[in-house]
Amino acid sequence: MKDNWHVVEETFNPSKLHHSETIFTIGNGYLGTRCAFEEMYPGEMRATFLHGVFDDVPVVFTELANTPDWLEMEILLGGERFTLDQGTVLSFHRTLNLKTATLTREVRWKSPRGRITHLLFERFASLADEHLCAVRATVTPENYSGRVEIRSGINGEMDNLSFKHWAWLEQGTRGREAWLHCQTRATEIELGMAIHLSMTVAGESTRVTRWDVQNHPTLVAFSDVKSGESAVAVKWITQYTSRDVKNPLKSARSALKKVAGREWAQVWENHCQAWEADWERSDVVIEGDDEAQLAVRFNLFQLLIAAPRHDEHVNLGAKTLSGYGYRGHSFWDTEVFMLPFFIHVRPEIARLLLSYRWHNLSGAKAKAAGNQFRGAQYPWESAATGEEVTPTWVPDPGDRTKLIRIWTGDIEIHISADVSYGIWKYWKSTGDDAFLLERGAEVILETARFWASRAEWQDDLQRYEISDIVGPDEYHDHVDNNVYTNAFARWNMQTALDLKDWLETSHPEQWRKINRRVRLQPKEMKQWQFVIDHIYMPYDPETKLVEQFEGYFQRKDIDIPSLEPRTESLQSIFGIEGVNETQILKQPDVLMLMYLMPDLYDFETVKSNYAYYTARTDHTFGSSLGPSIQAIMACRVGDPGAYEHFMRAARADLFDVRNNAGDGIHGASAGGLWQAVVFGFAGLEWTEDGWKANPHLPEYWKRVSFKIMDHGKELSFDVTRDS
Amino acid sequence: MKDNWHVVEETFNPSKLHHSETIFTIGNGYLGTRCAFEEMYPGEMRATFLHGVFDDVPVVFTELANTPDWLEMEILLGGERFTLDQGTVLSFHRTLNLKTATLTREVRWKSPRGRITHLLFERFASLADEHLCAVRATVTPENYSGRVEIRSGINGEMDNLSFKHWAWLEQGTRGREAWLHCQTRATEIELGMAIHLSMTVAGESTRVTRWDVQNHPTLVAFSDVKSGESAVAVKWITQYTSRDVKNPLKSARSALKKVAGREWAQVWENHCQAWEADWERSDVVIEGDDEAQLAVRFNLFQLLIAAPRHDEHVNLGAKTLSGYGYRGHSFWDTEVFMLPFFIHVRPEIARLLLSYRWHNLSGAKAKAAGNQFRGAQYPWESAATGEEVTPTWVPDPGDRTKLIRIWTGDIEIHISADVSYGIWKYWKSTGDDAFLLERGAEVILETARFWASRAEWQDDLQRYEISDIVGPDEYHDHVDNNVYTNAFARWNMQTALDLKDWLETSHPEQWRKINRRVRLQPKEMKQWQFVIDHIYMPYDPETKLVEQFEGYFQRKDIDIPSLEPRTESLQSIFGIEGVNETQILKQPDVLMLMYLMPDLYDFETVKSNYAYYTARTDHTFGSSLGPSIQAIMACRVGDPGAYEHFMRAARADLFDVRNNAGDGIHGASAGGLWQAVVFGFAGLEWTEDGWKANPHLPEYWKRVSFKIMDHGKELSFDVTRDS
Repeated sequence: MKDNWHVVEETFNPSKLHHSETIFTIGNGYLGTRCAFEEMYPGEMRATFLHGVFDDVPVVFTELANTPDWLEMEILLGGERFTLDQGTVLSFHRTLNLKTATLTREVRWKSPRGRITHLLFERFASLADEHLCAVRATVTPENYSGRVEIRSGINGEMDNLSFKHWAWLEQGTRGREAWLHCQTRATEIELGMAIHLSMTVAGESTRVTRWDVQNHPTLVAFSDVKSGESAVAVKWITQYTSRDVKNPLKSARSALKKVAGREWAQVWENHCQAWEADWERSDVVIEGDDEAQLAVRFNLFQLLIAAPRHDEHVNLGAKTLSGYGYRGHSFWDTEVFMLPFFIHVRPEIARLLLSYRWHNLSGAKAKAAGNQFRGAQYPWESAATGEEVTPTWVPDPGDRTKLIRIWTGDIEIHISADVSYGIWKYWKSTGDDAFLLERGAEVILETARFWASRAEWQDDLQRYEISDIVGPDEYHDHVDNNVYTNAFARWNMQTALDLKDWLETSHPEQWRKINRRVRLQPKEMKQWQFVIDHIYMPYDPETKLVEQFEGYFQRKDIDIPSLEPRTESLQSIFGIEGVNETQILKQPDVLMLMYLMPDLYDFETVKSNYAYYTARTDHTFGSSLGPSIQAIMACRVGDPGAYEHFMRAARADLFDVRNNAGDGIHGASAGGLWQAVVFGFAGLEWTEDGWKANPHLPEYWKRVSFKIMDHGKELSFDVTRDS
Repeated sequence: MKDNWHVVEETFNPSKLHHSETIFTIGNGYLGTRCAFEEMYPGEMRATFLHGVFDDVPVVFTELANTPDWLEMEILLGGERFTLDQGTVLSFHRTLNLKTATLTREVRWKSPRGRITHLLFERFASLADEHLCAVRATVTPENYSGRVEIRSGINGEMDNLSFKHWAWLEQGTRGREAWLHCQTRATEIELGMAIHLSMTVAGESTRVTRWDVQNHPTLVAFSDVKSGESAVAVKWITQYTSRDVKNPLKSARSALKKVAGREWAQVWENHCQAWEADWERSDVVIEGDDEAQLAVRFNLFQLLIAAPRHDEHVNLGAKTLSGYGYRGHSFWDTEVFMLPFFIHVRPEIARLLLSYRWHNLSGAKAKAAGNQFRGAQYPWESAATGEEVTPTWVPDPGDRTKLIRIWTGDIEIHISADVSYGIWKYWKSTGDDAFLLERGAEVILETARFWASRAEWQDDLQRYEISDIVGPDEYHDHVDNNVYTNAFARWNMQTALDLKDWLETSHPEQWRKINRRVRLQPKEMKQWQFVIDHIYMPYDPETKLVEQFEGYFQRKDIDIPSLEPRTESLQSIFGIEGVNETQILKQPDVLMLMYLMPDLYDFETVKSNYAYYTARTDHTFGSSLGPSIQAIMACRVGDPGAYEHFMRAARADLFDVRNNAGDGIHGASAGGLWQAVVFGFAGLEWTEDGWKANPHLPEYWKRVSFKIMDHGKELSFDVTRDS
């Protein structure tokens, strides 16, 4: 980790195959490709996901379809197939260069018959041209001379955990090219892919033959190679979908023609320059703590390769584009955890992500109407269309005849306010009035309308309540008056009223246009105000404790330290029903609320609640969303445990601390990590004089520096222990 | 249909693609292959199923895995790909010769560029060697000379309705051969396949090249062909699984070597001879009714190609080996509908089918124990292991967030008695004491034990009842005292006691051996007798009506004729809940009972019940099991409607009268059809003087002849209208 830009694996460990596939994922905002090897390995989860390419599937309704494989290279060395599960791996190095977004693998391999070969693989998904990927293999026989043969095609037969999504349309081969045209079976999204394969030995081009096998067109380059000489094979891959262009195969083939004659170094250089520009704006420098430095860059890299760059109809999945977890669906993880990085560092990307929500407003309205509410109710899990795609039932892993009911799609409703919150924060930071006027305002108003219809008037108590929901803390379901949800509902309605006043005053013409769609009447706004004024917000002035939901304090209080150490979540230990009866939290909603709405409670209240809820949270195996926010709140109250919480988030994927990184990157944790550095340790806050740092640097950190954008201007921060 | 041995299709109708794939299925008791074309067609359901090759799958737990495709031939004619969805189909004939179990397809096709080609395809799955299949293509350019290229391999990428079951292990190509070794992903059943491809033009062998593409090794034969000349390609396919042999790839390759040098005519002749011997024993000749003749042969053919010939660990699926319906699972359809044909015509096959139940006795015991009962409770749906594989929940087609609970696996319990009934009938007909002593007796005793523990003593009524079940009539679930079930429970216990007496007297040594496993005590047998004497059997001596289950007569009585004509089932019209509240039957349990146990009721009772229940049955879209049995009962009571019921069964698959033949052959209907001819129209019955015909031939039938086996002796019957 010499310069804190490289994630390195020095040995090949088959038992961590899926974890390595995830953390060595590459991508360019158009696609993400897990780090399967060029050659096959048994049990691998070889996958590429393209933004927005969803297809129907049983149980989870829709998922990103694993696209035809572009990586594959079957290599024959003197007739022996190169494969790591046979022969001897003499050395193995896998390196992800975060700076250049380039993955290299260097292997010395002794075949079963004793032939030793040095193999170097390089791959990248071009950031300069998101439709272009490339693989280069340099193969050097060390103790023999013989034929080197590389078979590489487009494999249209990929599946998602055994489920196939693609139907073949057409294909072909010519010269050093092959192409495939296919479409998803239910959603009929077409994909056109084209590849070009060349190989040189001692500067001489080798022969290439074509195997035009159904749904797996393959190019075969081969040549005799002398001991010590290298065969260098370069594969260019272009791909377009019918989401991008009308004729994706034609576009892919014509893009291929442009790249086919170019030098590897030249194309790669363009890619590197694009990344240099990206890092120039996005990097966070931490001096004095190499592990934290690399982890932060690794997590920023995950956000940068997963975020769309040109597509406003897609969003970030909870597991980015790096694995099957949550099937590419998007959650509040976007607005609350990942979006802040984009708002403050890459606002043009934040705008795309928020536009996705606006484009899916009709889905949210349909969901509200289906539930007999007004306005827009955003889906808990969202995919291509914005309709609810949370699975209703999933198989019980303990008994195949039983099913587990998943309630979040029905009753985890805070997402609608989280979306509006994201829009508001974006606007506050960027001053992008055009976005607010054309798109954002409608979302804020329609979600406010949802909340006003969702809140229930309790005549005996003369107050509004929101009952039977799940808050962010999913260890407790079917609760009443979750304080996070009530507070965000109130905020959403208040913000809508404030927004309406501002629109009417500052942009009367636009307001009339917006209101032709929203049709907001004075009477309705009056009702919103009445709900705002009467919604129940639990608070005990004596203890200064905010009760997470009604009756929470009556649940069983468990001494968590007495259960340590453990290797599973407290939900696993107590069971789904069991943990519901305790005060144990998957994540602390009250602290999350205090983080997001810092003006709501005084410092003493924050401290009391921090102490109470921190002791009752499953920090290690509860929500992966928790640790980074916990670190920020620890900074605010002066808890020296902040760094431990921070590192728990920092290591989530790199060290697979939750044993599920094989399912994909924890995107919210990655986004939270940036927030923890910037709003926690650097203590950035908005004051009357603009952004100020109020640092709480961990012991070993000498310096933190980063840039943010404020209303179109770049601000640099350089925070030291003494600033 | 000149000689009533040929199923013929004269035009290609893409809208009936799946129906045709089903009815032109070929097989040999080892495998069944749906009639997909050699070349691909969009939306096809290309599938081959091998007996016993089950693999795990969501929702339905386990299914026959669609095996690697052996049929495929991609044909290039002067560079143009032969495909029926482009160009013009000038003529099309598909013929299944039932006598030789050979499928031919003859096509004249004009390519988009105007080339006209005559193509003849022949295929068979050898009955002489069940590991061998063959395809021959004869390609004749009519108005051009050009290159004919045939690409044909083993496609390891097949899926079951999008779900993939196979993992690659190894493959290779050499000379004119290719091979593939793979295994099912969960159950790890290995499959070895090998193919040989040759092509001749004007007697000269053409070149063959090899495309060794991952999981789809392909052979390519090509040659220039003059107008009017024919290119003849022959493909041999061998396959073995780890269920058959230790090293399936080795076995497949060595079997291939044996066949590769042989002439098509010679290998095909062996296959035809095997079928000639089969038909010699199995055929039913009907004179005077061509449609019935062909339909009966077609349905017998389905039983003959689906039944295992050498494997006692597999059973007949409800949809044979011809489609995805019920995923290859076996039901009571085997013992009650299909088994009688095998008992009386092919007892050696009946023995295999019943041995399957004995091998799975441990699964049935586990099911009983899991439900807190004693003995053996057979699964409603059964696959490889005999554990219950009925899906518990299936998706609601009308609302993707909802599920439908399937109750049959929990409470359709008559299957346990049906299995014993099949064993008893087999023994009575064959006198196969060895089978009874070694296998059958244990099943009859353990199922009797189940029934004795399942029956519930009602102290107030001083009787045993069986409550909360589904009878064969599945329009009514959660019913009490279904008369079919109660009668079969009583029969099962009584037969067990009779059997025990016989064993003790005739085979005391064997009985001791059996009872070391069963551990039957006098006290337990006394309890069985008490249950037999006290089990409730509803009967009204006044009306002579047997109530199907308690309270049935109180349900709503619907005038079915007033709802005709209709194109869907009465369950669809009334809904699952709605039809449950009526007297409408999917099939009439009381008549089924009277058919299977003719001595239970007097003729007047049979007539009364026939009249009552016939009027209340959904004959057209209710159970596909019903019509053939209805035809038999109609014969018994002298109802002239017998032929109409019979033809409804006869046409079930050939004419797709229920619009679901695409899911596979209705095996029970096929088996019932044989029973309807033999026990209905020919009126075969067992008398003191042995088997006698008591004919009720339909108007146009001049003669029916068939053979049955009785205690190892073949008996021929030749029944005319006057016999």
